[in-house]
Amino acid sequence: MAKYGFLGLGIMGSAMAANLVKGGLEVVVWNRTPDKCLPLVQLGAVAASTPRAVVEECALTFAMLADPAAASAVCFGPEGALEGIASGRDYVDMSTVDAGTAQRIAGAVAARGGRYLEAPVSGTRKPAEDGTLIILAGGDRSLFDDACGPLEMMGSKILYLGEAGTGARMKLVINMIMGGMMTAFCEGLALGEKGGLRPEDILEVLGAGALANPMFKGKGELIRRGEYPTAFPLKHMQKDLRLALALGDELAQPLHCAAAANEAFKRARARGWSEADFSALFEVIRG
Amino acid sequence: MAKYGFLGLGIMGSAMAANLVKGGLEVVVWNRTPDKCLPLVQLGAVAASTPRAVVEECALTFAMLADPAAASAVCFGPEGALEGIASGRDYVDMSTVDAGTAQRIAGAVAARGGRYLEAPVSGTRKPAEDGTLIILAGGDRSLFDDACGPLEMMGSKILYLGEAGTGARMKLVINMIMGGMMTAFCEGLALGEKGGLRPEDILEVLGAGALANPMFKGKGELIRRGEYPTAFPLKHMQKDLRLALALGDELAQPLHCAAAANEAFKRARARGWSEADFSALFEVIRG
Amino acid sequence: MAKYGFLGLGIMGSAMAANLVKGGLEVVVWNRTPDKCLPLVQLGAVAASTPRAVVEECALTFAMLADPAAASAVCFGPEGALEGIASGRDYVDMSTVDAGTAQRIAGAVAARGGRYLEAPVSGTRKPAEDGTLIILAGGDRSLFDDACGPLEMMGSKILYLGEAGTGARMKLVINMIMGGMMTAFCEGLALGEKGGLRPEDILEVLGAGALANPMFKGKGELIRRGEYPTAFPLKHMQKDLRLALALGDELAQPLHCAAAANEAFKRARARGWSEADFSALFEVIRG
Amino acid sequence: MAKYGFLGLGIMGSAMAANLVKGGLEVVVWNRTPDKCLPLVQLGAVAASTPRAVVEECALTFAMLADPAAASAVCFGPEGALEGIASGRDYVDMSTVDAGTAQRIAGAVAARGGRYLEAPVSGTRKPAEDGTLIILAGGDRSLFDDACGPLEMMGSKILYLGEAGTGARMKLVINMIMGGMMTAFCEGLALGEKGGLRPEDILEVLGAGALANPMFKGKGELIRRGEYPTAFPLKHMQKDLRLALALGDELAQPLHCAAAANEAFKRARARGWSEADFSALFEVIRG
Repeated sequence: MAKYGFLGLGIMGSAMAANLVKGGLEVVVWNRTPDKCLPLVQLGAVAASTPRAVVEECALTFAMLADPAAASAVCFGPEGALEGIASGRDYVDMSTVDAGTAQRIAGAVAARGGRYLEAPVSGTRKPAEDGTLIILAGGDRSLFDDACGPLEMMGSKILYLGEAGTGARMKLVINMIMGGMMTAFCEGLALGEKGGLRPEDILEVLGAGALANPMFKGKGELIRRGEYPTAFPLKHMQKDLRLALALGDELAQPLHCAAAANEAFKRARARGWSEADFSALFEVIRG
Repeated sequence: MAKYGFLGLGIMGSAMAANLVKGGLEVVVWNRTPDKCLPLVQLGAVAASTPRAVVEECALTFAMLADPAAASAVCFGPEGALEGIASGRDYVDMSTVDAGTAQRIAGAVAARGGRYLEAPVSGTRKPAEDGTLIILAGGDRSLFDDACGPLEMMGSKILYLGEAGTGARMKLVINMIMGGMMTAFCEGLALGEKGGLRPEDILEVLGAGALANPMFKGKGELIRRGEYPTAFPLKHMQKDLRLALALGDELAQPLHCAAAANEAFKRARARGWSEADFSALFEVIRG
Repeated sequence: MAKYGFLGLGIMGSAMAANLVKGGLEVVVWNRTPDKCLPLVQLGAVAASTPRAVVEECALTFAMLADPAAASAVCFGPEGALEGIASGRDYVDMSTVDAGTAQRIAGAVAARGGRYLEAPVSGTRKPAEDGTLIILAGGDRSLFDDACGPLEMMGSKILYLGEAGTGARMKLVINMIMGGMMTAFCEGLALGEKGGLRPEDILEVLGAGALANPMFKGKGELIRRGEYPTAFPLKHMQKDLRLALALGDELAQPLHCAAAANEAFKRARARGWSEADFSALFEVIRG
Repeated sequence: MAKYGFLGLGIMGSAMAANLVKGGLEVVVWNRTPDKCLPLVQLGAVAASTPRAVVEECALTFAMLADPAAASAVCFGPEGALEGIASGRDYVDMSTVDAGTAQRIAGAVAARGGRYLEAPVSGTRKPAEDGTLIILAGGDRSLFDDACGPLEMMGSKILYLGEAGTGARMKLVINMIMGGMMTAFCEGLALGEKGGLRPEDILEVLGAGALANPMFKGKGELIRRGEYPTAFPLKHMQKDLRLALALGDELAQPLHCAAAANEAFKRARARGWSEADFSALFEVIRG
């Protein structure tokens, strides 16, 4: 029976790897700080001592690292994943990385005869635990087909979008729309409040019509209470808007609304809300 | 048994009045062009020859006119509704009118001893037929309570928002958010398309996550096909953004995102999309 | 010898009327509070007791009132200017009024057989005293030709722009550009300051190149010192941006930059800078 | 007598080096394509065969290269300037480069014991020929003092702004203001035109008041005629706006007006105006 590797056992990775084990797969795990492997081992996984060791033992290895720097270190570092890659030992990187990092990893994997797939996810802790992530894959189509089984244990919606890079672009597009929606939402709440409307009435009307969506419902209730527990940090929302605008710059696509939203989130950063949830934008729009 | 009046039998008014008849009420109807009364009469309503005649016969009269000019004409014109108003003969105006028109009607009704409620609706033909409109009421609270029975036959969500004017303001706030969401949505679709993503993939990802909402689903499918059958005319969307920005001006609430959306819709008007559905904004944003 | 009337002796009007007297004309003046007539009488003017009396005595009467309400009152009120208008007794309104007010006055003057010219001015106290205003005339061309002599005593640049309304539109266009320039200027100063540049260096570089203009020079020095003595109130700047955007709405001209500037000035109003000079925008942009 | 080196003899560099020769200095020149050296040699300069040879012969070497890539190649390439740098052989880079490139060159020069000054210029061909450039220097103060003599032969305004990087930042700030001014200007012209005003009247009014500036005068006349001969390419204007916004992002300075201007210039790029003068923005704003 084929074995599957999993590199990176943070909040997201631990939950995702656990779903592979629960799904009946043989899983070999690795994490920079080894103690994070223990819960997985108790579930039935096997721990290895280096990324290279994981890759050498498995037909297919998944990686879920915190950022581009971590993704690069795990791939390219000494005893890193790359050293184990070969024909028949493939790599699916589920970390959210920039296009440049993705291309470097893709090229290096291919140069050693392995196949590469990027598969960033949309969704946070809860969907990771429930196996209901949205997985945005781009890269080698045959690898996508081969990896579908385990991917379906981690996500409820799995899309193959095209060549490498399309997964990352999709994430930017979705998050850009999210930033614009949040800005429009906060402006509406602020205008309504100044105009004598109760926030709970605005939320009720929004929830009853064609604009109803889980984000307005969840964040709206928190905004109404003035609470901004961080699910998605405001500084990351602004960074994604910035990257989406840079993509628009590259592709000569004007984006007036996203640009206005970006400046609004920048104002929120300037006022000290970087680490709060991105819905804290409301505090700055209300003025 | 009390009778209820209904003035204005356009697409919306016909459906709404029909729901009152089907709900078992005795309804007296009037329309400027009398032949529109026939289907209602066949359902069991009685037709009257003037607005005044309707009001004189009923404890409570609803009005659903096309615009502020029509609402004023029906109220203030010769043999108009106002001439029939008196203590015990009240008026619920469900037309979408500006604050000035609402205040003039409210004042005139009160001056004759009647009670006044504004109750603009959110929703179009289908919810009107299904009795699932969202009704945004403002004005006389006791009249709201008395009118709840028939209002519940027309809408599935009925809110009393406060003094006269709050209903109209709520509608502007909701539509301003809608305009911002549509702009963000079109920008995302345009950026994705230029970036090599398939629109159907973007729609699928949006539909699977926290941003999922009926508008993206319905309009997204039409945008994908390049079809813009008019459900809500683009020029009306831009007008509502303009009015919302004017309200923001009055209340000193900056609205950068709504302002950018407004200019985008103005560009669409300049390019000849005024009468198309407001989702035709996509054609202009794509450039 | 023909006599000239002058209605309205505020800061601007007093200086303008004085220039007519100094230019050797026979001038009949009126002001709502009569004591403002004294300095003009000492210069050689004659005071009259009502606007009507002024108009009846003069071939041509100039008006310089504070706002549309004052301009309407002086024209249409009892013993107002209109009652004196007739063929051979014409009216040049130099007040800044909206298009509606201008059209009402123009129509009423024409109905009584008089000629009408709008001639709003660009410039404040100093140019009014020096006779160096910019005069933006629109309306009756023959009256413009006849009035050129006295207009040249008040302004150094006199333009006939076309039909009635073009003068007012020109003023909006100029002030819209001014609002955009001020916003760009303040953003540049704020960015430079955060980036470690000295404001005096930025002003020096600006003053040495193709962007050099009197406004940057004058306001830049005050902004650098954090002083905002009111030459042009911020609330008026924002009002002009609003009116320019409304004109853009009417003409379907998208104005993204002006819209962003307008929202920035709205934020300044919300923070209490309404009565300060419009250059106080800097305080809000710096954040 | 000390010798001065000059690397890069494009349109700008040729004119600048010529001014050094005419100023009586001994100048050693180099250019990638050697034939560009001839006119300088005829004026009295000496040509060298490599950047290294120039630097080794001179106490002070100026560089004026086309872009960051060229500036890096000339400095770091084989037989490049860096190989000649030593204590007493200093480097003044007048090219417009990004902060990263500047820092790499500055560090390398210092590591070899030389002094480094960045000195980008504001102004184009004509001021370069006339010796009336604006020079924005940042870096080693003592080198600035030593270089003042030759710098004054090239520019009429020479500023020392502070540490390395301040020169580049100043250029971005100035160009960001320029982009915002151009956008406001084009919006005003477009609105006026749609509103029945003659462009020449708008230009005349602008030229007579506090907003008058050489750019409006020069570009306005060209825009009126619909001619856009390239003095400053539109794509470079947009690039500078993008870099200024990136600086604003880094420093958490919201820049709503610059962001709107940037999107407008992006639209112009999308419509094929990249290589035209940046005043061609008007064509896109007019719609």
